[in-house]
Amino acid sequence: MTGLPFEITAVGFVRSALRGCSAAPRQGSEGAPDAKLEILPEFLEGLTGIEPGQDIWILTWLHESQRSVLQVHPRGDPQNPLAGVFATRSPDRPNPIGLHRCRILDIAGNCVEVAALEAIDGTPIVDLKPVIESSRDF
Amino acid sequence: MTGLPFEITAVGFVRSALRGCSAAPRQGSEGAPDAKLEILPEFLEGLTGIEPGQDIWILTWLHESQRSVLQVHPRGDPQNPLAGVFATRSPDRPNPIGLHRCRILDIAGNCVEVAALEAIDGTPIVDLKPVIESSRDF
Repeated sequence: MTGLPFEITAVGFVRSALRGCSAAPRQGSEGAPDAKLEILPEFLEGLTGIEPGQDIWILTWLHESQRSVLQVHPRGDPQNPLAGVFATRSPDRPNPIGLHRCRILDIAGNCVEVAALEAIDGTPIVDLKPVIESSRDF
Repeated sequence: MTGLPFEITAVGFVRSALRGCSAAPRQGSEGAPDAKLEILPEFLEGLTGIEPGQDIWILTWLHESQRSVLQVHPRGDPQNPLAGVFATRSPDRPNPIGLHRCRILDIAGNCVEVAALEAIDGTPIVDLKPVIESSRDF
């Protein structure tokens, strides 16, 4: 296999009132604030066709994560038995990619406003994808 | 922002009867075969707690993609108006991460068998996550 490791780049950054990991809820549905996705000018063309009201997947790079961690106590609670990171949403994992489903509230220039995003301010955004509503792939 | 670009590594590889991009359906629900996820030994501990019958997100690195593409005709059909790659599931995009929802059929050693995966043989796997069933995050 050639080309490993691969280089992943930021296409933008999260702008949020959440300033540190300790402030961040574990899931967006657990009280996360609305946030802005500031897309870098060189990737702006990639937004064509994205509309307010639509649900998207936001893929982030959880840049404060520990990449050597393979097992965790889910939700940081030592009462929970150790689980493999692939069986959890722990930000600590070999490739710390965050996966967030959010509704688009507004788009203005290079700024996409979304509802209830649990990523902290400054988190690199690596991809956006439409949610495909089907029985298998949400 | 320090640390850019980031390095992303393979935690395993897809083993599939699909041998090339032209053979691959665009979504798993469009006739994709069952496939095996061969997890590298050094990441095996990360699987603890994953069970057959469970749905997971498989994040792949679509290694044959064109990363400079920002707009495409959806589904490769020139009749479809140009759309930004962030509004589509095109494999061509700045960071070609594939997002696949699959059901686990079996786990044996470092091999996770899943149903209906549209990624081709040899595709690097970069992360696995549990599907969280809620109104916002599937």
